[in-house]
Amino acid sequence: MSGTRRFKAIVSYDGSRYVGWQTQAHGISIQSTIEAAISSICLKKTSITGAGRTDAKVHAKGQCFHFDTDFYLDAPKWKQAINGHLPKDIRIVSLEEVDHRFHARFSVINKRYDYVINLGEYDVFTADYAMQCWYSLNIEAMRKAAAVFIGEHDFSSFCANSFAQTTDQTRTITRLELVEEGSFLRLIFEGKGFLRYMVRMITATLIEVGRGRLSIQDVQTMMDARNKEVCRYNAQPQGLYLVRIDYEVPKSEDEDKISQA
Amino acid sequence: MSGTRRFKAIVSYDGSRYVGWQTQAHGISIQSTIEAAISSICLKKTSITGAGRTDAKVHAKGQCFHFDTDFYLDAPKWKQAINGHLPKDIRIVSLEEVDHRFHARFSVINKRYDYVINLGEYDVFTADYAMQCWYSLNIEAMRKAAAVFIGEHDFSSFCANSFAQTTDQTRTITRLELVEEGSFLRLIFEGKGFLRYMVRMITATLIEVGRGRLSIQDVQTMMDARNKEVCRYNAQPQGLYLVRIDYEVPKSEDEDKISQA
Repeated sequence: MSGTRRFKAIVSYDGSRYVGWQTQAHGISIQSTIEAAISSICLKKTSITGAGRTDAKVHAKGQCFHFDTDFYLDAPKWKQAINGHLPKDIRIVSLEEVDHRFHARFSVINKRYDYVINLGEYDVFTADYAMQCWYSLNIEAMRKAAAVFIGEHDFSSFCANSFAQTTDQTRTITRLELVEEGSFLRLIFEGKGFLRYMVRMITATLIEVGRGRLSIQDVQTMMDARNKEVCRYNAQPQGLYLVRIDYEVPKSEDEDKISQA
Repeated sequence: MSGTRRFKAIVSYDGSRYVGWQTQAHGISIQSTIEAAISSICLKKTSITGAGRTDAKVHAKGQCFHFDTDFYLDAPKWKQAINGHLPKDIRIVSLEEVDHRFHARFSVINKRYDYVINLGEYDVFTADYAMQCWYSLNIEAMRKAAAVFIGEHDFSSFCANSFAQTTDQTRTITRLELVEEGSFLRLIFEGKGFLRYMVRMITATLIEVGRGRLSIQDVQTMMDARNKEVCRYNAQPQGLYLVRIDYEVPKSEDEDKISQA
């Protein structure tokens, strides 16, 4: 490890033309695009570790990743160099050197996802950046139903993961807020971790409540079922944004020594 | 003409992935995309006449065109059918049957173009929808210089047309306003007609004023030169929007008869 430093980066991307964060057999991924940029700067194949995956067409304002390198650049130069190699739809917002104990995935304490719905007229300029809703929604009913999801629950009914992938499907949503912004409706989700499709499936379920096609009791029944068959709703990817990731503040080396003493 | 009706349409498009309004040898144009949609509905090759061209990557919120057809659909059905055949980045906003004397290009009395500049941090979500300005601008100086352009002038210095294309390069700008919207600056241009690149060249010139690299006197001297060699500035296409086109209200047939009497 001598000479190897770890850097943490916050990255923003327009996911429209990507297959998602993770490298796939076909199509271009965000991860591979960033790895190609870093590798071409330090002339050494370098991989990055993201906080989590985002699906095809999903956007990020504050995705995080870390990478290790022994290349001589400091943090401001790394940021500048990577941005110089990235296409216009991916941009490093900030980059800093961190302790080796920092881990982009394991050190997460909170994530915020927003889901944006256009309740107004169809608009070519937001087609890739919001879900178009053609129905009028009862937002008060949606707010009441949102309460069903807040707190610690087994979200088996609202995710795509098979049990084989993630045995424990218990997660905690600490915030689920519906904010009206002109003709747009923004759903703000916060929690330490989310299962695959969880935000989009909950959003789509709340839209069904807003349309009057599901009651709050129906939503509660779906939740209690803990069954992957009960929820067949999934909101489109282009409305989803990974907004922010919060990390635990790592203890300093000194504190470590003290606690070991 | 018996049975042939004329329809006027207002169309909005995200120009990012198009070569512009006009059909070109290479790449996809807005015009040809709309013509393909209409032709596939009425099963007859149908051409449309636009109010004017927009260049590659330029956007429109209110471009206008007309087309003639003897197909049986009425206006609401035409709108619905065309939108059903268009890609998500082109959308008919409104469509109505008009008098045969209406002409999308010749009946124009006023056009509005907006140019949008991002003065804030680079943002992946506005990269295709605003020009990124890396400099701080003296907006008051730009406002003063804008006055040079308002009114009737020979705009030879601020256009790309060769004299062979347009002999008379005199145009009238009735409005040129700079509006600050958060970290964005919007330049609003109105006038009956604009020369090719005129809005973008004036915008780029005003940015040079804002950066302190040109004085108001310099701008006046450039205008007075009426010379295509003096202005080498041209702002990027993605900041430009064709916002609205106003048409003369055609006299009714009755009025025509009265005036002929």
